[in-house]
Amino acid sequence: MSIAEDVSLSLDEVDALARRVLIAHGVSENNARSLASVIVQGQRDECHSHGVYRLISCVRTLRTGRVDGRAVPTLRKLAGSVIEADAHGGYSLPALELGLPALVEAARQQGLAALTIRHCYHFSALWPEVEAIAAHGLVGIAMCPSHAWVAPAGGTRPVFGTNPIAFAWPRPDGQLPYVFDFATSAIARGDIELHARQDKPIPDDWAIDEHGQPTTDPHAAMRGAMRTFGGHKGSALATMVELMAGSLMGDLTSAESLDYDGGAGASPYHGELLLAFDPAVFAGDGLAAGHASGERVLREIAAQGARLPSQRRFAARVRSEANGVRVPRALYDDILKLLD
Amino acid sequence: MSIAEDVSLSLDEVDALARRVLIAHGVSENNARSLASVIVQGQRDECHSHGVYRLISCVRTLRTGRVDGRAVPTLRKLAGSVIEADAHGGYSLPALELGLPALVEAARQQGLAALTIRHCYHFSALWPEVEAIAAHGLVGIAMCPSHAWVAPAGGTRPVFGTNPIAFAWPRPDGQLPYVFDFATSAIARGDIELHARQDKPIPDDWAIDEHGQPTTDPHAAMRGAMRTFGGHKGSALATMVELMAGSLMGDLTSAESLDYDGGAGASPYHGELLLAFDPAVFAGDGLAAGHASGERVLREIAAQGARLPSQRRFAARVRSEANGVRVPRALYDDILKLLD
Repeated sequence: MSIAEDVSLSLDEVDALARRVLIAHGVSENNARSLASVIVQGQRDECHSHGVYRLISCVRTLRTGRVDGRAVPTLRKLAGSVIEADAHGGYSLPALELGLPALVEAARQQGLAALTIRHCYHFSALWPEVEAIAAHGLVGIAMCPSHAWVAPAGGTRPVFGTNPIAFAWPRPDGQLPYVFDFATSAIARGDIELHARQDKPIPDDWAIDEHGQPTTDPHAAMRGAMRTFGGHKGSALATMVELMAGSLMGDLTSAESLDYDGGAGASPYHGELLLAFDPAVFAGDGLAAGHASGERVLREIAAQGARLPSQRRFAARVRSEANGVRVPRALYDDILKLLD
Repeated sequence: MSIAEDVSLSLDEVDALARRVLIAHGVSENNARSLASVIVQGQRDECHSHGVYRLISCVRTLRTGRVDGRAVPTLRKLAGSVIEADAHGGYSLPALELGLPALVEAARQQGLAALTIRHCYHFSALWPEVEAIAAHGLVGIAMCPSHAWVAPAGGTRPVFGTNPIAFAWPRPDGQLPYVFDFATSAIARGDIELHARQDKPIPDDWAIDEHGQPTTDPHAAMRGAMRTFGGHKGSALATMVELMAGSLMGDLTSAESLDYDGGAGASPYHGELLLAFDPAVFAGDGLAAGHASGERVLREIAAQGARLPSQRRFAARVRSEANGVRVPRALYDDILKLLD
């Protein structure tokens, strides 16, 4: 696609567009602000499947009437180190915004703490969430189920969602944190959706078709099941996510989320688990030494030319903050149609 | 190897043998009891690299004079949810035994808690440790660095240890827990050691040689570096383990552990992180429903014929508890020589 076919937008314009679309579909102003913020972050970091593209599935979900765009989340302390934010059938993000200060406070007081988000619709990446924890100088971990689209290693039918796990480690001297956020599936669902949208074949280790056979057809993959990354180890991690971010808090698993959807095509409806650890508590007097130790690990990885996750994203962030972003004309037009 | 070349031992005999070897090499009675217990568990579950075979590297470590077999661990509460057990240069296991009741109590009170084990020599698998947490009805997670033997994805030199991550989910009705315990390296170091011992070639995706090239020679692999499982995702998890079970508590990373060893050939010297979550706090009134939800996930995986981790181990456990265990004659003789 040539540059002439792209639309240039400032980050403020992306934010205004996202809010306008969301509010037009019944989302409250406060909730639209919260959702637009992560859509801007996705577009800014050139995570295209989590940028303005997500507005399409947001609106699809809103049109099902399932998600309550005006839901007002509530907070409850379950124990000294466990806070529960109930999204009451709304999106996860307003509940996260409400719960984050309590999570940070509990982590500082107790050394570590958990925030569970309950009864939420989820469409966002987890890296903005763990980055928000790391911005307070804390280590963040997050995980959640999705819809059951992924078969266990050695299996034939979907059990797991894409079940992402994200981690952020705060780095000293104003550096951006060390962050990873990966699906325990071989690939993110959004990547298969993008291939299907463009009728482009997928690598044969991403998915199986509805008969349990490997496939390169993204449409067959959407009807079949994705595979986990890393064989039985990835499959074990995906199981952990179902148990920890579903069963532990008594919220829906990925299979239950898909059943609950009943073909409506809405975003997954489930829970989410976030953990925050305070290095100042764990390391005590050794805090500066602990930071220095982490820097040695990260610098040695980078010095070999090995990949540090998020670096591509952080480079895009610098570009986008200076120059704004580009959105393919066809996608931009599809989004404008959401305002009709 | 034919059965005639095996030695049959009861679990009590394995325990007595392990204690005798350890005490003969200067380990205190209480510490020998603690170490022998996990060696028995390894042999019982037919995890051969963590059974009596480990006595050889235990004695190697004790002979270096590095580990203090008579160390008396101490406990300190760093915050409401963080307990630190200092092994004072001894093995990790007596420190874990000391810290476990405090971890369980804090998890029940606060909803979740962490136990850090500091300044410890480590040679055991993590599954006995997370199983010990699950035996209290809690969810357990454990991770630790080791010696830097593993290169990051896309890298050429060792940075990570085998950096295992273990997880145990308590199951209802007296069932054994759902447990996984895997190295974030492509394979456990012990497996390459066993191949080297037997001069058997290894698959070419396990390791690189000292020039950064894939190799099937286990000896070249021991001089080079192991690879992580699952490409950049496994590499990211290995990084997380260095940061969370090393830098966070200000203890040694895998590279620092190997430097500290300085060629002595002792077991890795570092820290360990254990987490415990109380489902009764997270689920509240929904505890029974949460257990039922977890069972549906696990049963659906097994119903497809997909692998549930630890099932092979649990089957071996039943056999060994009924009939005792078999140890290859050559290995048994090597262990008896440790008593000379």
